[in-house]
Amino acid sequence: MKMSIVVIGANAAGAKAASKAKRINPTAEITLIDRGTFISYGACGIPYFVSDTVEDVKELMSTPVGVVRDHQFFRKVKGVTVKTATEVIAIDRAAKTVCMRDCQTSRETKLPYDRLVLATGSTPFIPQISNVNLANVLTVKSIEDAELLKSLAVPGTRACIVGGGLIGLETAEALRHKGLQVAVVEMRDQMLPGVLDWEMAALVEKQLRQQGVTVMTGSAVTGLVGDAAVEAVQIGDVRIPADLVVLAPGVAPNVELARGAGLEIGPTGAIAVDTRQCTTDPDIYACGDCCETTHLITGKKVFIPLGSTANKQGRVAGINAAGGEATFAGVIGTSILRVFAVNAGKTGLTEAEAKAHGFEVETVLSPSHDKAHFFPGAKPIILKLVAERGTGRILGLQAVGEGAVDKRLDAAATAITFGATAEQVAQLDLAYAPPYSAAMDNLIVAADILKNKLAGHARGITPREVKRKFDEGDDFILLDVRSPAEHNAVGIEGAKLIPLGMLREKLEELPRDKEIIAFCKISLRGYEAQKILDAAGFRNAKFMDGGILAWPFALRTSDK
Amino acid sequence: MKMSIVVIGANAAGAKAASKAKRINPTAEITLIDRGTFISYGACGIPYFVSDTVEDVKELMSTPVGVVRDHQFFRKVKGVTVKTATEVIAIDRAAKTVCMRDCQTSRETKLPYDRLVLATGSTPFIPQISNVNLANVLTVKSIEDAELLKSLAVPGTRACIVGGGLIGLETAEALRHKGLQVAVVEMRDQMLPGVLDWEMAALVEKQLRQQGVTVMTGSAVTGLVGDAAVEAVQIGDVRIPADLVVLAPGVAPNVELARGAGLEIGPTGAIAVDTRQCTTDPDIYACGDCCETTHLITGKKVFIPLGSTANKQGRVAGINAAGGEATFAGVIGTSILRVFAVNAGKTGLTEAEAKAHGFEVETVLSPSHDKAHFFPGAKPIILKLVAERGTGRILGLQAVGEGAVDKRLDAAATAITFGATAEQVAQLDLAYAPPYSAAMDNLIVAADILKNKLAGHARGITPREVKRKFDEGDDFILLDVRSPAEHNAVGIEGAKLIPLGMLREKLEELPRDKEIIAFCKISLRGYEAQKILDAAGFRNAKFMDGGILAWPFALRTSDK
Repeated sequence: MKMSIVVIGANAAGAKAASKAKRINPTAEITLIDRGTFISYGACGIPYFVSDTVEDVKELMSTPVGVVRDHQFFRKVKGVTVKTATEVIAIDRAAKTVCMRDCQTSRETKLPYDRLVLATGSTPFIPQISNVNLANVLTVKSIEDAELLKSLAVPGTRACIVGGGLIGLETAEALRHKGLQVAVVEMRDQMLPGVLDWEMAALVEKQLRQQGVTVMTGSAVTGLVGDAAVEAVQIGDVRIPADLVVLAPGVAPNVELARGAGLEIGPTGAIAVDTRQCTTDPDIYACGDCCETTHLITGKKVFIPLGSTANKQGRVAGINAAGGEATFAGVIGTSILRVFAVNAGKTGLTEAEAKAHGFEVETVLSPSHDKAHFFPGAKPIILKLVAERGTGRILGLQAVGEGAVDKRLDAAATAITFGATAEQVAQLDLAYAPPYSAAMDNLIVAADILKNKLAGHARGITPREVKRKFDEGDDFILLDVRSPAEHNAVGIEGAKLIPLGMLREKLEELPRDKEIIAFCKISLRGYEAQKILDAAGFRNAKFMDGGILAWPFALRTSDK
Repeated sequence: MKMSIVVIGANAAGAKAASKAKRINPTAEITLIDRGTFISYGACGIPYFVSDTVEDVKELMSTPVGVVRDHQFFRKVKGVTVKTATEVIAIDRAAKTVCMRDCQTSRETKLPYDRLVLATGSTPFIPQISNVNLANVLTVKSIEDAELLKSLAVPGTRACIVGGGLIGLETAEALRHKGLQVAVVEMRDQMLPGVLDWEMAALVEKQLRQQGVTVMTGSAVTGLVGDAAVEAVQIGDVRIPADLVVLAPGVAPNVELARGAGLEIGPTGAIAVDTRQCTTDPDIYACGDCCETTHLITGKKVFIPLGSTANKQGRVAGINAAGGEATFAGVIGTSILRVFAVNAGKTGLTEAEAKAHGFEVETVLSPSHDKAHFFPGAKPIILKLVAERGTGRILGLQAVGEGAVDKRLDAAATAITFGATAEQVAQLDLAYAPPYSAAMDNLIVAADILKNKLAGHARGITPREVKRKFDEGDDFILLDVRSPAEHNAVGIEGAKLIPLGMLREKLEELPRDKEIIAFCKISLRGYEAQKILDAAGFRNAKFMDGGILAWPFALRTSDK
């Protein structure tokens, strides 16, 4: 008898699982069920559809050669039967059937299965605030959401986005692009919490402001205001006028069906699976946004819903459901987004995450050009590399800037997966020619400095700590070792200028026992200055991590 | 007493070694000696200076903030004494002195050293052909070369480049950019031998022709023709008129000084060093283009001179010379270049190299977009991934295309360094969002297919083998499973059309025992077709690797 495999949910993970199952077991009957009408769409493309970057929504549902992945495509090309507008309302594990309801007729029918794959996805989390049901308050997840948002995105409209995560910021860019007035409200004290550390997020926030987006951090929305349609967002005593509110505080896994069937829900609230993507029922698999996975650095279970992970898990679930053998080890928390002209992302753990997991860490901020500095089109990026003290193992990389950050993240993601140390990363044989990188790639430079910090040769101090010293009136010298021209153009208030080339001759201008913190544009010269001061017997010389390019506070600019 | 460290050669490796030595040992006296007048320049930038992409030659000799790395810079900033126009003509290892000759006065002096670092670089290899000393026959290595070439690069001039390697092709682009007529002559049967396999090089050759460059492979230059200045290049019976000849058949390490001092020269002809960059004299180190290194995959000694490697080795030589402790493990043969609109590179071993080293390999050609296919600006790239049979270990990646190949090379270089298998690469948590990649990154897709090939599920055949079958009149069917619209627009002569969506219904049109080779645009549908045919009981179904995008031969195009 033919094996029957039922897959619930027809987006990234489900569509992949169904296709893969058929390929592994060509005689199996595969049924792919979805409660929506649109299937197999690239949900990650939705912000770009809203901004008109992608013009036709069909492009999100097409193969790279332009064939729409519809019922006919799945039947003829993939040999998979698709049922849309059909909701699975219960699983009878004893009888091995699912109960389906036709969304139009409400008629219920049963479908037997030998193997079941849950790819039920996630739903935007709706915060517990007043009036969330007002008109023009929406989320961004489905094609229907996107079309509604697009219809409301009229130039001049005042939009307020609740949540400064990946989706919130991608939506902010999309709406700003359409000519709206945009504010982003985030409860935490920075944008992209969980993705970037504070000082890296500050660079993204700067970009948002430069693009005319109002950035409100540390702001918890207490309610929405309006009669029929939303008119304002209430944040404590402050009221922000808004014609349109996008709720983007995150997503929650759709686990009702699994919970109803008695399957184990993991510590993250998502469906628990093993490395074969198998749930606690050996005939039921789960993949994509509805299930949790393992973080390969911490070993802990995590819920990090991403299209890239969904595809990999769908593959594994499909193979195993069809009788094959495959495993998915887990993730390291890589994510990336574009925020206007800036690219920002991370892989592995941030400093905050690493510390929260009990790691003792050393970090470095390393700004430089993404190509040879003399090559036209070279753009700045800043890397923050985090390593474990003692072992020197790289725990994470964050990268922000106008240049190619994705390349450095992918190399670091690979290095982290294999437990690479700063020493090993500094020796990587990366692809070098002037159109692609400097002779010493940004990642290698960062790893080199981090190695020196781990060994105690380089003593860095963060810009945030320097700012605190100023604010608290500490007795120290912030030493600008750039050229007079650089110093005059833009600087940090309170810094003393001695260009690096003059430092050896002007040592007597500096007190030997005071804390001296040197900096330059990116702090390679800052580090050189520390070494010169060390060699001259200064007791407490340091450099400021990342130099002026990583200084997230106000700058003194020339008044030309 | 202060330690005296003498560094011979003041470019990438030597400049790095000198600076690093001073930083490690601030009391040491460091002397950096070069026979040239320009020091610490980015030789890799020379083609871009020739093409006017980089306008001022000073940019190649400057730090990222625009400070020229001259005598004063090294003295004041780095604490290093520089002697230019000074040639070291002998090393007296017993007395621990070097004998220097002033290039202007020819006066000879001795300089004692405690530690010596050789960074003598390489020199363009001059082929043994007649009349290489004619005027307007030059090499591209030094700033002086570049300035001469630039002065001769007048629009309309007929330039012939001898050697289709990295420097030859970069120079071809530069000269074409300046409006010259350009021909590249290569002895081997493909461009970029040692960098790309034949079918990947064919894609680069196609780009060269599209840009108006004459490509001559399998052409050994037998001599140059002319009276005072060169007038033609002789290739057997063929004479190519040329007003300008650039010799770029490779470079040879400068080892005369080392050999004269009795230091060991390795099997590659470059200076032998250990992982500390130490030569056979414990007080003499070597780094950069003059020394060999270890290939981390084969374990063999190799001579692969590159600016990226020179910097890393210079660092290690400088630290060790100054009394520190550092090692450089080796390289995996990564290289990259831009050829007009196309980026091309490799890391690890090519298929040809792997086979030459005795590896049994499986390979895949995988074309796809470098970003989400619906994202504006997504461009095609083709990956060729090479793995070892049995272990599944990735041995190499080649990548060619208009899109971001460097990112995939860097991730693969990292994976290869850590011995990753195709299975592990297919699970990497790479950075995904539509502006950066598809949900399944090109590298992951390629690794997935390779896994299937290693497991025997996917049976690929190369375009070159298909062409051979046609040429030899083999009895087989080349099955185009694309849409009729795609098929009509461009195709392969002799192919039969059955769109993938019709294949399950039209199986009776195909003979069950004949060899059937399916293909599509990139051969993902080709692979699906193989699986459908397998499932239907066909005995000898395969797919053509890389699809029509990897077909390097003539195509049938619609006559619109």
